Amino acid sequence: MKKGIKVVTIGGGSSYTPELIDGFLKRYHELPVEELWLVDCEEGKNKLEIIEKLARRMIKKAGVPIKLFTTLNRREALKKADFVTTQLRVGLLDARIADERIPLSHGMLGQETNGAGGLFKALRTVPVILDICKDIEELCPNAWLINFTNPVGIITEAVNRYSNIKKVVGLCNVPINMHKAVAEILNEEEKNVRISFGGLNHMGYVTGVYANGEDKTEYVLSKWGNQSMQNISGTEWSNAFVKELGAIPSPYLRYYYMAKESLEEAIEKFKVNGTRAESVKGIEKDLFEIYKDESIDEKPKLLEKRGGAYYSDAACNLIASIYNDKRDIQVVNTVNKGVMQEFEYDEVVEITSMITKNGPIPMPIGRLPKAAKGLVQEIKSFEIAAAEAAVSGDYNKALLAMMINPLVHSQRYGKIVLDELLEAHKEHLPQFYRY
Amino acid sequence: MKKGIKVVTIGGGSSYTPELIDGFLKRYHELPVEELWLVDCEEGKNKLEIIEKLARRMIKKAGVPIKLFTTLNRREALKKADFVTTQLRVGLLDARIADERIPLSHGMLGQETNGAGGLFKALRTVPVILDICKDIEELCPNAWLINFTNPVGIITEAVNRYSNIKKVVGLCNVPINMHKAVAEILNEEEKNVRISFGGLNHMGYVTGVYANGEDKTEYVLSKWGNQSMQNISGTEWSNAFVKELGAIPSPYLRYYYMAKESLEEAIEKFKVNGTRAESVKGIEKDLFEIYKDESIDEKPKLLEKRGGAYYSDAACNLIASIYNDKRDIQVVNTVNKGVMQEFEYDEVVEITSMITKNGPIPMPIGRLPKAAKGLVQEIKSFEIAAAEAAVSGDYNKALLAMMINPLVHSQRYGKIVLDELLEAHKEHLPQFYRY
Amino acid sequence: MKKGIKVVTIGGGSSYTPELIDGFLKRYHELPVEELWLVDCEEGKNKLEIIEKLARRMIKKAGVPIKLFTTLNRREALKKADFVTTQLRVGLLDARIADERIPLSHGMLGQETNGAGGLFKALRTVPVILDICKDIEELCPNAWLINFTNPVGIITEAVNRYSNIKKVVGLCNVPINMHKAVAEILNEEEKNVRISFGGLNHMGYVTGVYANGEDKTEYVLSKWGNQSMQNISGTEWSNAFVKELGAIPSPYLRYYYMAKESLEEAIEKFKVNGTRAESVKGIEKDLFEIYKDESIDEKPKLLEKRGGAYYSDAACNLIASIYNDKRDIQVVNTVNKGVMQEFEYDEVVEITSMITKNGPIPMPIGRLPKAAKGLVQEIKSFEIAAAEAAVSGDYNKALLAMMINPLVHSQRYGKIVLDELLEAHKEHLPQFYRY
Amino acid sequence: MKKGIKVVTIGGGSSYTPELIDGFLKRYHELPVEELWLVDCEEGKNKLEIIEKLARRMIKKAGVPIKLFTTLNRREALKKADFVTTQLRVGLLDARIADERIPLSHGMLGQETNGAGGLFKALRTVPVILDICKDIEELCPNAWLINFTNPVGIITEAVNRYSNIKKVVGLCNVPINMHKAVAEILNEEEKNVRISFGGLNHMGYVTGVYANGEDKTEYVLSKWGNQSMQNISGTEWSNAFVKELGAIPSPYLRYYYMAKESLEEAIEKFKVNGTRAESVKGIEKDLFEIYKDESIDEKPKLLEKRGGAYYSDAACNLIASIYNDKRDIQVVNTVNKGVMQEFEYDEVVEITSMITKNGPIPMPIGRLPKAAKGLVQEIKSFEIAAAEAAVSGDYNKALLAMMINPLVHSQRYGKIVLDELLEAHKEHLPQFYRY
Repeated sequence: MKKGIKVVTIGGGSSYTPELIDGFLKRYHELPVEELWLVDCEEGKNKLEIIEKLARRMIKKAGVPIKLFTTLNRREALKKADFVTTQLRVGLLDARIADERIPLSHGMLGQETNGAGGLFKALRTVPVILDICKDIEELCPNAWLINFTNPVGIITEAVNRYSNIKKVVGLCNVPINMHKAVAEILNEEEKNVRISFGGLNHMGYVTGVYANGEDKTEYVLSKWGNQSMQNISGTEWSNAFVKELGAIPSPYLRYYYMAKESLEEAIEKFKVNGTRAESVKGIEKDLFEIYKDESIDEKPKLLEKRGGAYYSDAACNLIASIYNDKRDIQVVNTVNKGVMQEFEYDEVVEITSMITKNGPIPMPIGRLPKAAKGLVQEIKSFEIAAAEAAVSGDYNKALLAMMINPLVHSQRYGKIVLDELLEAHKEHLPQFYRY
Repeated sequence: MKKGIKVVTIGGGSSYTPELIDGFLKRYHELPVEELWLVDCEEGKNKLEIIEKLARRMIKKAGVPIKLFTTLNRREALKKADFVTTQLRVGLLDARIADERIPLSHGMLGQETNGAGGLFKALRTVPVILDICKDIEELCPNAWLINFTNPVGIITEAVNRYSNIKKVVGLCNVPINMHKAVAEILNEEEKNVRISFGGLNHMGYVTGVYANGEDKTEYVLSKWGNQSMQNISGTEWSNAFVKELGAIPSPYLRYYYMAKESLEEAIEKFKVNGTRAESVKGIEKDLFEIYKDESIDEKPKLLEKRGGAYYSDAACNLIASIYNDKRDIQVVNTVNKGVMQEFEYDEVVEITSMITKNGPIPMPIGRLPKAAKGLVQEIKSFEIAAAEAAVSGDYNKALLAMMINPLVHSQRYGKIVLDELLEAHKEHLPQFYRY
Repeated sequence: MKKGIKVVTIGGGSSYTPELIDGFLKRYHELPVEELWLVDCEEGKNKLEIIEKLARRMIKKAGVPIKLFTTLNRREALKKADFVTTQLRVGLLDARIADERIPLSHGMLGQETNGAGGLFKALRTVPVILDICKDIEELCPNAWLINFTNPVGIITEAVNRYSNIKKVVGLCNVPINMHKAVAEILNEEEKNVRISFGGLNHMGYVTGVYANGEDKTEYVLSKWGNQSMQNISGTEWSNAFVKELGAIPSPYLRYYYMAKESLEEAIEKFKVNGTRAESVKGIEKDLFEIYKDESIDEKPKLLEKRGGAYYSDAACNLIASIYNDKRDIQVVNTVNKGVMQEFEYDEVVEITSMITKNGPIPMPIGRLPKAAKGLVQEIKSFEIAAAEAAVSGDYNKALLAMMINPLVHSQRYGKIVLDELLEAHKEHLPQFYRY
Repeated sequence: MKKGIKVVTIGGGSSYTPELIDGFLKRYHELPVEELWLVDCEEGKNKLEIIEKLARRMIKKAGVPIKLFTTLNRREALKKADFVTTQLRVGLLDARIADERIPLSHGMLGQETNGAGGLFKALRTVPVILDICKDIEELCPNAWLINFTNPVGIITEAVNRYSNIKKVVGLCNVPINMHKAVAEILNEEEKNVRISFGGLNHMGYVTGVYANGEDKTEYVLSKWGNQSMQNISGTEWSNAFVKELGAIPSPYLRYYYMAKESLEEAIEKFKVNGTRAESVKGIEKDLFEIYKDESIDEKPKLLEKRGGAYYSDAACNLIASIYNDKRDIQVVNTVNKGVMQEFEYDEVVEITSMITKNGPIPMPIGRLPKAAKGLVQEIKSFEIAAAEAAVSGDYNKALLAMMINPLVHSQRYGKIVLDELLEAHKEHLPQFYRY
């Protein structure tokens, strides 16, 4: 008999949490969550309370015996957990504003998962996640850590390098959206379509498409060229480029292959609307107003506009597959184990995997296009340099990470942006200010 | 008894030729050139005549029995040649002006060996070089082809992929200048200093420095940070970056690690002085005025300002080492043969090599920094895409090469610049206009 | 609606066929075989008739609407087949006698899948299988070829290299038996145990064992040391060796790690009982007597003693998984696709795979022990040399294959055995006697 | 001004020493040895005295100012040494007798560098060499260690793995003899012939032959097939095999590719003459009788029959090249540095190298034949297991090394021979008898 499951969600006051709750409720028949702990920090206390009340209404409506707990005491929550999910944001959205605003103000892309902004989100977040890992090691050593805190690639790489936790999976909704888009092109149900996806988080490629036992890769390549995502809308891929490349690039790759226009658009938007972080702040405010409404007892529609749709649901799905040893196929961030020859044996990749009780098993996805190999390796070396800088607090390592990132590729401005961001995030970067 | 040597120089009317002549004269004791053929095309006839007269004065002064021939008939010249050097410029400096001006006018680096400009120089030059290879195969199958036509990396890769010529070496003066700079830092004579150099043409790194049997790498890394080159002057490397990187980057790498400032400076200069090609055109005019002066019978000093100093001398040096099976150490562009794990077995790299009668043997140079591996592979995939586009005349391949180059990384502007350059160079790109 | 399936079994007169029939009958609910064609050659006609009658009795008893056909005309049978299984034996058991007897008579292991005997079975069989592939390409291009003709590794490698058939899977019962043995040690049901298996056919290793989500590898390694298989019984593994090696070797690896004692035992047995082939001939005679018995209408127990137990059942299982896109885990011979770093990207390996409608997807199994890597690569190079020799009929290639096989490793005796076997199998080796 | 050189020879009482002395005398003009220290242990005292007197006569005759010292105190000798050569034999020839006799008596090749005998020579020698390394680190940290104690491959690998000494080169005379044989086939002087040699000690292959700038590989492969070496005489290679293999195997490879006949011959010889060690003992006795003869003042001719001809001369040659930064080409045992893709980056290989003041730089030798790759990797894993066993004294590791060696490949006899050799060498294997 399987015992009921204890799930701990760190960053439980996040606006995403209702989707997570919804995901657990939908899956209760196969994933009997007995205890769900929502943990947040002092600054998030107010939001946590709102979420708690909504969650209680949702659980009540669903009529399932999930026990809900909220706490600001992480260690109390972690005891004997089976699954720990992390969706935290060190410094809240105000920090993200700086990550976007400072690079943009020096003519550089400002974005929370790539380039200078992504680097700084990693510098702030990695130490916190590694602390959580130490707590897990002590308090719930058999738990799975499901991370969907960005930048997921760097965080998962850092956990793998610098903690003793081996049961960690990083999760992103991009591959799910690409899967959906591929199925749409094929006019097929998603479940009949299988994709081979490989690369890094926010830097992956669909290398193969199969439907009902047939290889549809060439067909989909010939049709690709106007897909977009809600939060990276805009310019479309040239179909000639996609065909010649021989793989479908993740929408986030427009930051690279369309770096110049991405930057121009970002600067344009920035001038008109301020940063994306500021818009999100507005959306979040609206969301929490809705969450407060006592008549609401399910996940509100508006949440899907938030940008991270399917993220939390993907987490529930992953947890259900691990718990039930489903051996189904999902795209996750996990250790390469030699499967992608483009990366080292022990590096974390984002890859089509089979999900088992022992975690994800990455599957061969063919070779990446020759034309993509260098770029993904460049970003992997950036991820590693970023993780090293985050752990060591070494200025020079941070400068290296900055300068080798192709969205920065500047010594003069790299240094300026580095210095300004270090100053702006001083409070959340104690490792750089130890002396 | 070794027979006298026949050397054929294609592009003999180049302003660099006097240095080449000087190189052969200096080395006559070990490199007994019996026949030197200078070949040029109709457009270069006038310059070829000026060079011929100067060359005759130089040979006469040196008092060596080198027989000089000039011709516009390449096939006549190639018969039974021992060494063929190529220093040609398809479309002359006017083509270079377009390579620089068009990208710059769309806010993109315009430069003749990197980015969009480098791509187009390759598209024009590769087919001509492959034609020369066919002639060599037929008329002097045992000859060595010494190419110092830019972009040397792409040209040498293309010869290796698309011709039957195996005796080919690509040559660049950058490693020589880095060797000199390293020796200067160490306050040692060059001959006592050995460097390990590896990577691609204009994208190499010094990974090790040895003087008198001691490893001086750490010392030189700790001092590097204000080297510059005559034709890529400007911003200096941050020593913190160089130390953290763990290898000395080629000065040309500033186009990547300092892309933003390089571009700004280039645009600034462009506004004030026009393109570099236009300046060079002026220098060349002055040079040919000097060359015409019948009192001049040696290589003029001014030539050293031309930018390619040591280039032609390096060619003579390489030829002397092959001819005499010297087994000395030079940095050349040659097939990797598995030595650099960062590249495929058969890819062309720029690497420290031992020069033998059978050509260069690449030597192990250690691993490139993790942080450099992705970038060099990205550029190698660009080089291969460029060579494919040059040979096939396929628009989509050219677009791929354009978009994956990190100095372009734009779909919108990549396409605009591609279209404008195709139009500007129409005459020299017949492979793209076959239908 | 899924249409009924057409299965063609080449070598249908084999004594294994009743197990195959049994496998299809058991799985009819998920694998609705509409037509089952048993094909054999003139020499097998008599046995085919006996099998046919037994099969009809079995089908009748099971009460399922499978239509049975028998024919000596392979091409007639193949038309529009969905699955083709091959279980043929070129030259019948008499050829196997020579494969065993000749090497043994020169003090060399004589065995039908390894060493000199394995080489000759490959030389005879590969051309026949490649002919079948040509027929498949023409008559049923969408069919899956499921090969369990030995030597499975060489055959599958040859199909992959020398035919246009991509839908091919090689199958062996050894991994199934190892899975059973592991489960037994753990005192668990097989379905709760997952193994990581990798290497080559008859040269594989279990690199990991998982039960109910826990890694039990160390435990099983500490217990291994007295497993044996019915047809390779005998000396037991030293547990010290297995633990130090760090992986569980396939029972067939005793031919290598216990080469001397295997040879001694084989010679001993040979002296007493003659070859294994001769014993099998006896068993087969008994089996066919039973098959003739009209009161028998199910698979006889004795068949399990035949040595290939689970072989045919494994084939049915594989077919059911492909047909139903089950995505379950089986160990098969398939293209590496880069998953095992010990082999080239395109080499065939025997490996834990997920079975889908598009065929097997190999899964990462960790690294083989350092101490095993050289041996498996040596055998892979033997397999490739054997396939080349089989296709070309080149004597020198056959000599190379012979001499590099560690069970031969003799020039003098290698040549003698090669010459004697070529002579003995003359009739079935036309490619060596073309002139 | 270069200072005079201090050379220390450990095992100075060896019968090889006169050749070493001769080598230094011949090269005095380029290698001004100021002090030569011959070190031996108590058991070798008598032989050391004989050698000393002969050496003094040789030096006197040559008329060079080399100061000769002999001592039993290794640490006294090592102070400030520039070069340390090791040619020691732990347990003297009596130990070798056991290494040969015990395996042979169980029907297994008994040989001092391969198989069981090679393993035990390594188990005895590695700890002694590692002790010497510790002394070098303390007393002459800048010295080069030139090891020609067998098994050279394992010893050099062990020094590289388990000591802090980086300046180590392993040396063998086999490549020199192959070079000579190749030159003979080409009817050329050795200096005009260059070979590419790669693999492991006693397991190398000539992959390329060049004479006067031409590739003569195919020609030499077509002629190879009757070369032999004095101490591994006997059966000749089949030319068909060599051509098909595509590289010239080292004579020692007959132990593998002609394992059966090598064993038969060895057993035959053993029955008639006893072990090779016993013959060598006789030769050595004769040699020392000659050495005692006061009229002898140069290297006696008979020494060339000893089997290790050119060994000591090769050492002098190597030392001269390091000392003078000659950058000439020699085959040595050194760290791969990624040059041979068949081995790991840090593994020791025997390879064509350029000899510089910083030691050997391995050169690309092309790929080994596919058919050789597995075998050399198998032996490399044996070497590593042997080194691990030697350092740890772990019985199971020794058993692993034994069983994976293709000249043993037996569990039953492997264990018997292991146990008997452990017992026979008890005195020299304290690491296995610590408890």
